[in-house]
Amino acid sequence: MTALEKLYTAVASGKHVCVGLDTDIKKIPPHLFKTNNPVIEFSKIVIENTVEGAAAYKINFAFYEKDGTRGFENLHKTLEMIPKNILTIADAKRGDIGNTSEMYAQSIFGHFNFDSVTLHPYMGYDSIEPFIKYKDKLNFILALTSNKGSADFEKQKLSNGKFLYQSVIQKVNEWNTSKNCGIVFGATNSLELKENIESFGDLAILLPGIGAQGGSLDDVVSTFKASSNNNYLINVSRALLYCDLSVEFGGVINRTLAELNNSIRTIERKS
Amino acid sequence: MTALEKLYTAVASGKHVCVGLDTDIKKIPPHLFKTNNPVIEFSKIVIENTVEGAAAYKINFAFYEKDGTRGFENLHKTLEMIPKNILTIADAKRGDIGNTSEMYAQSIFGHFNFDSVTLHPYMGYDSIEPFIKYKDKLNFILALTSNKGSADFEKQKLSNGKFLYQSVIQKVNEWNTSKNCGIVFGATNSLELKENIESFGDLAILLPGIGAQGGSLDDVVSTFKASSNNNYLINVSRALLYCDLSVEFGGVINRTLAELNNSIRTIERKS
Repeated sequence: MTALEKLYTAVASGKHVCVGLDTDIKKIPPHLFKTNNPVIEFSKIVIENTVEGAAAYKINFAFYEKDGTRGFENLHKTLEMIPKNILTIADAKRGDIGNTSEMYAQSIFGHFNFDSVTLHPYMGYDSIEPFIKYKDKLNFILALTSNKGSADFEKQKLSNGKFLYQSVIQKVNEWNTSKNCGIVFGATNSLELKENIESFGDLAILLPGIGAQGGSLDDVVSTFKASSNNNYLINVSRALLYCDLSVEFGGVINRTLAELNNSIRTIERKS
Repeated sequence: MTALEKLYTAVASGKHVCVGLDTDIKKIPPHLFKTNNPVIEFSKIVIENTVEGAAAYKINFAFYEKDGTRGFENLHKTLEMIPKNILTIADAKRGDIGNTSEMYAQSIFGHFNFDSVTLHPYMGYDSIEPFIKYKDKLNFILALTSNKGSADFEKQKLSNGKFLYQSVIQKVNEWNTSKNCGIVFGATNSLELKENIESFGDLAILLPGIGAQGGSLDDVVSTFKASSNNNYLINVSRALLYCDLSVEFGGVINRTLAELNNSIRTIERKS
């Protein structure tokens, strides 16, 4: 299955939640410290309890890279636990000159064999092209992010009257000739989502910002329901991973995800 | 020594060349394949032969990450071979929301103990802040890059009449309250360098683009000589690393760097 086929299969069955594996050792249930590899034990229980309800898994490179070679070993082990029919996203936010992006693409799509990646647009097309060459993969390019700092550059107005993030969305649509591009659009920007959704075309959309960052699930789901784009993934990391710290945390995560999926269906029905 | 002190010491003695360790296994001298770890053997000889003439070493994460855990082991080994008084730059081009940038900062400044890092500005201040908190380190933020794609967004004109990259330079100056910020400015942009150098203030400047990418050494050195900023590093990677493929490549690299340093001194004298 290509990355896009995995996404289509998930959203066609009403699944839109991307489980963000930002495993912070300081936040996991304390009883796991008695195990041999607490990070992997935690990820194993999270994956087992979300595999039915998740549309995708997003692995945040930073949380593994900070532990160096041991972290990369855990990244490999975590990836191996995810069923092959579910989309995997390398949240690595890469972007460099051509020969270097080529190496990053080899790393993420070759060495690690992720289905997709998040990328910085700042350096322009030739920094993205080495990733786009992998036609069966999917490239989520940052458009408008969920953080406060998005005001510094992303929301700067250009001389043509558009905002920078709108120029990125336009370019990504142009770059999408192999149907393997998407954008990252922060769910905290409800108003901008409504105003720009028609410009998304059929791009795949990754929306962080629900949960710990304060974005509204209702706004996101109803806005997509009213549009022609159903290729969207709502990322939830901290609000799901650390919703319970007891020995029963797996079950609680399972029920929390089921409730989230129910909420999405309810919002879709009433939209 | 802080990162800035290392930079000042180098430039005060007339050293401006940053040796970029983009070790591509496909390009190294063939006889090294008889050794146990060709990448490390190559880096060892490169470092031994540049340690007198180099102002800094820039390690490109992509070239190590693509080999996963083994690559990260090589990254550690390479860093250990660089004398502690020479500035090390993690060319990682990171940038993410606050809690994730915090992890990347822990990785690069904590786990790997680099002196400095390259960063993407796109997501704004809170994506950079976790790095800036490390006061003794140095943060090179992408302003105008050396690649063709810089035209896509970096050279877009804003509604205030400035180009996006100029807005980045202005913001980086504002963020530089702890004197630990710098910018990346591609040496292929000679005209823009001349036009903008006064806006650099006393920021540290990392200039890729000389050599394989076609930037002019003469233009860069004479422009800085005519300005009040002497805190600049000219990165050379491919043009130095792969200038000879014989068993004598170490000596050739040594002489090539010495000639480059001589050229810089000659240009400075006549400027």
